[in-house]
Amino acid sequence: MRKVVIVGVGMTKFGRRVEGLMQLLSEASLAAMDDAGIGDKPLDAVYVSNMAGGILNHQTALGSSLVDRLSLLPAAAETVENGPASGSSAIKNAYFSIASGAYDLVMVTGGEKMGDVPGFVATDAVATMSHPEAEYPLGITLPSLAAMFTKLYMERYGITSDQLAMVALKNHLNGLKNPYSHIRGDFILEGVLHCPEAIVNNPYIAEPLRLYDCCPVSDGAASVILCAEEKAKEFTTVPVTIAGFGQATDHQTVHEREDPTDLKAVTLAAKKALDMAKLTPKDIDVAELHDAFTILEIAQSEHVGFFKKGEGGKAVEAGLTQIGGKIPINPSGGLKSRGHPVGATGVAQVVELVWQLRGQAGERQVKNASKGFSLNFGGFGNNVIAFVLKKGA
Amino acid sequence: MRKVVIVGVGMTKFGRRVEGLMQLLSEASLAAMDDAGIGDKPLDAVYVSNMAGGILNHQTALGSSLVDRLSLLPAAAETVENGPASGSSAIKNAYFSIASGAYDLVMVTGGEKMGDVPGFVATDAVATMSHPEAEYPLGITLPSLAAMFTKLYMERYGITSDQLAMVALKNHLNGLKNPYSHIRGDFILEGVLHCPEAIVNNPYIAEPLRLYDCCPVSDGAASVILCAEEKAKEFTTVPVTIAGFGQATDHQTVHEREDPTDLKAVTLAAKKALDMAKLTPKDIDVAELHDAFTILEIAQSEHVGFFKKGEGGKAVEAGLTQIGGKIPINPSGGLKSRGHPVGATGVAQVVELVWQLRGQAGERQVKNASKGFSLNFGGFGNNVIAFVLKKGA
Repeated sequence: MRKVVIVGVGMTKFGRRVEGLMQLLSEASLAAMDDAGIGDKPLDAVYVSNMAGGILNHQTALGSSLVDRLSLLPAAAETVENGPASGSSAIKNAYFSIASGAYDLVMVTGGEKMGDVPGFVATDAVATMSHPEAEYPLGITLPSLAAMFTKLYMERYGITSDQLAMVALKNHLNGLKNPYSHIRGDFILEGVLHCPEAIVNNPYIAEPLRLYDCCPVSDGAASVILCAEEKAKEFTTVPVTIAGFGQATDHQTVHEREDPTDLKAVTLAAKKALDMAKLTPKDIDVAELHDAFTILEIAQSEHVGFFKKGEGGKAVEAGLTQIGGKIPINPSGGLKSRGHPVGATGVAQVVELVWQLRGQAGERQVKNASKGFSLNFGGFGNNVIAFVLKKGA
Repeated sequence: MRKVVIVGVGMTKFGRRVEGLMQLLSEASLAAMDDAGIGDKPLDAVYVSNMAGGILNHQTALGSSLVDRLSLLPAAAETVENGPASGSSAIKNAYFSIASGAYDLVMVTGGEKMGDVPGFVATDAVATMSHPEAEYPLGITLPSLAAMFTKLYMERYGITSDQLAMVALKNHLNGLKNPYSHIRGDFILEGVLHCPEAIVNNPYIAEPLRLYDCCPVSDGAASVILCAEEKAKEFTTVPVTIAGFGQATDHQTVHEREDPTDLKAVTLAAKKALDMAKLTPKDIDVAELHDAFTILEIAQSEHVGFFKKGEGGKAVEAGLTQIGGKIPINPSGGLKSRGHPVGATGVAQVVELVWQLRGQAGERQVKNASKGFSLNFGGFGNNVIAFVLKKGA
């Protein structure tokens, strides 16, 4: 396999955007192309990652549309969809296209425009990735799956609501330092959980998960440009290498898994990515995990191996996952604060890691970060993709 | 790049099926796995190609669902979408995944379940790949685009309605010999065009295109299993090699193209695929083209280089594209007769070529076929993918 290097990154501000899906994809793409100084050098291919453009925006074939809009013809183009892991799936395939020798310079742009429809329609659109017979027709949505998982995880490991809230508080604090973040509020634990107004300010979405335990519904796009190592110098002086990737699937429905608290696909995908990079969790300087719900950041931090099973909640309490802590998790603000435009998320995770490894993350910079890790969580953990990125080529 | 070999193929009968999308994808996959004698050897990855599952079936993340349903965990999985070229896009990415050395054994299953909704809703779903500002809001659908293209092509090259009908007649005759075909009727030119009942039997869909010039709306799925050359012997004694591929994009809207009758992406994709295989159009023994409308088979046969510009219509009249002719086109019946479940089509084209190159095509066998060519036409020619397949490893 040829080595593959990231030579450009860009993203839009996440949040409620007036722009349409194609405009958001274009904005992120142009930012990445500008970052890489593409100029008039031809891109070989463009991968778009998007989950629900057909349902939410009544638009398909986004890849074809984007290459035309950006005057990148006759570059190859297609869309990759893998639920909330669409972004990482697209990056993986772009990576293979260069590693194989077929292409040299490839852009991956992920995006989702969720605000064109009411919130419950967006939640329903995301639920189309649930099991078509055993979940969706019964009204199961991702928040309800996460709530059931949280209850089991609390019972098994003694995770507390306060620990969950601390994940949200940390990520919102990080998000405050991220100009691309959707939700930028300065919250304190007492304000969201322990004051009389909390029941109004922070109501249950699906018990025991409250509003502040759930990521927002966001619009936005993110983009990365990948390049064969030998040509990377044409585009960047701060290359970041894809040193490892791993993907694994699990039973689509949580209730079919032998132990519903065991996220096997997370463990396996992370191990594959770290093994390929010849690293262990201890070597990682900064991580972007998939905190669509606060419980997921804790559970993933344990399954990846940053902490032992049952110790992720205590680690958050002890500040180990803050910027400056033992293993900073979601310095970007994560899905919780940066937002979760579904098809953009996996790409945005990699964008943040690139900024961190380049030392361009501003106020939220993790000092001396040279090895980054991302985890993109599809379905309810039924399709997980991890990347290990290393500073340098 | 490592050489990649097709070791298994399978498909469902196309047509109006009572089964749901996941059942169709499973049926085709199991047929391909059986054909390759996969047994309990683990597949590394599964690519699903599908265009409009979110809109038509309210289902996404089909890859995750399929690997679970078929007990292929923890195989990697994702969905690739590229309008009507989704199938070939998925095969291309599966091909890269093996060529890169990342995976050894990968399945691609394409499918679409279009009959769950009324026909006009299916037509609308397909139109979601049109331009979101310059086409879709104006009511432009694929049949109307094809009709405008046909008028221009007739004016420029003198193509006649009879020549278009002869494409349909040939493909329906071929489809009669294909047990997987959607429409299996024995038509004659007089019956569809020149008898008093023709106006009723074969009305205009979008002038000058009549009912028999348009492919049906179909349900169905098709599957291929790709393998690294060095392991192919474990699975098949009749390997077929992917000798070339090519992809090219063009302006999304036809009206932006300098010459609307010039299908540049077809010419370019075909040339790339043939160049990679070190072949010319003359070397091809059998071709599957994308006859969503009869005019497209004629126009593509010219743009690929089987015939000179303006001679494709006469070639059909002269019988050159029949089985036994100079270059048999669509022995399967093509989209016209076999049907066009959008996400399945590109895969079904490759399945037919594999059967032809193996000598397993029964009554529709092209004698001594050793080199096959497929062309999958996305959008209205804005994203085109071609493959060259060779008998043997």
